Amino acid sequence: MSKVTVLTRNEDGIAAALGVLKQQFGEAVSTSQSLREQHGHTTTWLTNQAPDAVVFPKTTKDVQDIVKICAQYKVPVIPFGTGTSLEGHVNAPGGGVSVDVSHMNTVLEVNASDLNCVIEPGVTREDLNTHLRDQGLFFPIDPGANASLGGMTATGASGTNAVRYGTMKDNVIAIEAVLADGSVIKTASKAKKTSAGYDLTRLMVGSEGTLGLITKITLKLQGIPEAITAARCSFPSVDAACQTVMQVIQYGIPVARIELLDSLQVKACNAYANLDLPETPLLLLEFHGSDASVIEQAEMFNAIADEHGASGYQTTSTTEERNKLWQARHDAYWASLNLRPGAHGISTDVCVPISRLAECVVAAQEKVAELGFTAPIVGHVGDGNFHTLVLVDKGNDTEMRKAEEFVGWLSELAIGMDGTCTGEHGIGQGKMPYLIKELGGAVDVMAAIKKAMDPDNILNPGKIMAV
Amino acid sequence: MSKVTVLTRNEDGIAAALGVLKQQFGEAVSTSQSLREQHGHTTTWLTNQAPDAVVFPKTTKDVQDIVKICAQYKVPVIPFGTGTSLEGHVNAPGGGVSVDVSHMNTVLEVNASDLNCVIEPGVTREDLNTHLRDQGLFFPIDPGANASLGGMTATGASGTNAVRYGTMKDNVIAIEAVLADGSVIKTASKAKKTSAGYDLTRLMVGSEGTLGLITKITLKLQGIPEAITAARCSFPSVDAACQTVMQVIQYGIPVARIELLDSLQVKACNAYANLDLPETPLLLLEFHGSDASVIEQAEMFNAIADEHGASGYQTTSTTEERNKLWQARHDAYWASLNLRPGAHGISTDVCVPISRLAECVVAAQEKVAELGFTAPIVGHVGDGNFHTLVLVDKGNDTEMRKAEEFVGWLSELAIGMDGTCTGEHGIGQGKMPYLIKELGGAVDVMAAIKKAMDPDNILNPGKIMAV
Repeated sequence: MSKVTVLTRNEDGIAAALGVLKQQFGEAVSTSQSLREQHGHTTTWLTNQAPDAVVFPKTTKDVQDIVKICAQYKVPVIPFGTGTSLEGHVNAPGGGVSVDVSHMNTVLEVNASDLNCVIEPGVTREDLNTHLRDQGLFFPIDPGANASLGGMTATGASGTNAVRYGTMKDNVIAIEAVLADGSVIKTASKAKKTSAGYDLTRLMVGSEGTLGLITKITLKLQGIPEAITAARCSFPSVDAACQTVMQVIQYGIPVARIELLDSLQVKACNAYANLDLPETPLLLLEFHGSDASVIEQAEMFNAIADEHGASGYQTTSTTEERNKLWQARHDAYWASLNLRPGAHGISTDVCVPISRLAECVVAAQEKVAELGFTAPIVGHVGDGNFHTLVLVDKGNDTEMRKAEEFVGWLSELAIGMDGTCTGEHGIGQGKMPYLIKELGGAVDVMAAIKKAMDPDNILNPGKIMAV
Repeated sequence: MSKVTVLTRNEDGIAAALGVLKQQFGEAVSTSQSLREQHGHTTTWLTNQAPDAVVFPKTTKDVQDIVKICAQYKVPVIPFGTGTSLEGHVNAPGGGVSVDVSHMNTVLEVNASDLNCVIEPGVTREDLNTHLRDQGLFFPIDPGANASLGGMTATGASGTNAVRYGTMKDNVIAIEAVLADGSVIKTASKAKKTSAGYDLTRLMVGSEGTLGLITKITLKLQGIPEAITAARCSFPSVDAACQTVMQVIQYGIPVARIELLDSLQVKACNAYANLDLPETPLLLLEFHGSDASVIEQAEMFNAIADEHGASGYQTTSTTEERNKLWQARHDAYWASLNLRPGAHGISTDVCVPISRLAECVVAAQEKVAELGFTAPIVGHVGDGNFHTLVLVDKGNDTEMRKAEEFVGWLSELAIGMDGTCTGEHGIGQGKMPYLIKELGGAVDVMAAIKKAMDPDNILNPGKIMAV
């Protein structure tokens, strides 16, 4: 049913490493089956490949010791944050040790003057923002799930407000990481910009645990904006909505969020939460800035939307009403699953140049209809990124094969538009064949770097590319 | 006098490669001494190390052929844009072939809807902006010199408006590069964001020609803002100016430029252009946005500056007056040299967390006084980056030694503040020892990547790190 890689298990090495780990870490090593399965958890269609043990380090030194033991016996090491990744990143195709960083969850420094902080990898996005609130600061990247910042760094996460604040690549200043030989590096200083050699920070961001285990992260922070305004309006077509978005971006309106829900997604949300939104493509927006600036942004947006036949324009500034206005977006995932109770959702993640976005979304809708699937769409349209949630019966092999075909078909369509098969979910196991289609020989360069930094292929093997 | 590395020359290989290159490229290969020396040109104190020949490719295929020939004979290949880099990047410490991309200067695509363009590496910053102007677009990175965009990409350039628009790292979407074996890769699609494997784009940006020769670049573009306002005011101290900057950034005022001139720099500008600015620290600013937003930004700035004892606040919106207001900044380099006619300027490039900036600038001023140098300071203070221009007599060995000591002292001071020895000029040859002090074991990782991608060390050898 699934297309996970299976790697040869180094049984003797695994047994030996587990012995040493248990001796050194005692209670902090677990081989309980349920815990192992939870740590091989994956939220796509990929088969669970549980690790042989889960270890809970508390310090960088612990991580170093774990990696050194595993390196000695050539045993796979798979870093684990909260397990919310979508492409089988935490699976253990050759067995090995899952390194769960949830006990490394301290906010080490908040430097308000410099708008940065230093955290351990197990700190979650919501925990960090709770910690920062009193100081009038926030960390903007929001992938939806309450992921760990270590995991978000490792997968190069982004989400709804990347259109204004960028992705993890733009918001990580420096990383401390344990390498395959157990040594520790820091990738950069705390300077806001640097030309000091190769950009190892951005090489580690999105490397999915295959080059090192992240043990500390220096993040950029933002001041909480003086004013936040939310807006919503409906469009006669996906194309009209996308044309609006394109113009908004071209005019340089600094929208903080601009999200598309297609007709089916709106319908799902209406049914789920008893809303009465017009069942046509919907844009939801958020503007951040000074009081005057958010008003100006909202007015400029409204004028552009009008030209493209928008209707039902609403705007609000209070927190409570903002949440109500955005409810459809917050509910989107559960509302979608409700369209087919018991079904499992498989999310695509293509991202294309914004000029091709409407064409790509409409083609996806048509293909979904042709295949007989139910698959609502939400999109981070300011970035050209959208997710089709294909609702499948996981037990039905024919359906699963068709769903896989659809994922491949859409990935290739996006690649043909000079886009990518993954805007924010990463490659993991699920997107490996499409990465090669997308970047060809560049994948050999990635493999060469991987080999240079991890010659025994112990760091999260079987992910991103074959080595 | 200088501290350039000298590498062993592969005389037989160089002779053989030049023979084949001349046969294949004819007139496009030159061994004229003046041209060779110009291509080993460096604008710091580093000795000129001329290449053995200069080749002018016209296409990616030409670059591939040149690299393949050089690879066959293990001869160094040094990419060359306009030669405006500052740390000996284009020197040829082991001889070899300079690849001058000035004939690869076509703007291949401008995609206004997607706010991106595809260019060849020899296109200069000013040429690109001239090309874009009619479409209401511009490319924001401005390192001062009219550098080639290939060179700006290779060195990870930035400049005065990085505080708003970021550096080259933030503005390059994808790169086509010829690798050490002559193969070509593209690092990414044209999607605005991507999680497709290791971030080879950002690995190439700032790799200073040591990992590949850049043959095409996809750049992010910006819409020309509706309104631009310039402002200027004087401060009682460097600390007062830096406190102002810190608050401006914390408040999230999206300043497009915020530049510091220290008292000596202001004095130099007064003398050079007959201005009558108060000879105390000066901030120059530029605000980009809508008409209403630039007024609001300027007012907010003024209120903050007032709290820190600013005086002589002026603001203007017309292009001509903006240029007049900024004249001191535009003249800064030549005005500085005028302080000591005949002298050579050696520029430092440290960048520190903004909370340490005032302390770092004042310490630099005090050290300069102690050493008896004349050395005005300009700073991209929104980023914590500043340049001390030490005016030296290049023929005076004692002075040169002292200047080198100063560069080292300041680099180490910045590193001690968790900053970097180079905010935007790169490592080249000049900063190699400080890179190790700054990042320690991470430099071994850089060397491992270099070895994996260029096992014979033919791509710009002797730069960034010893391999």
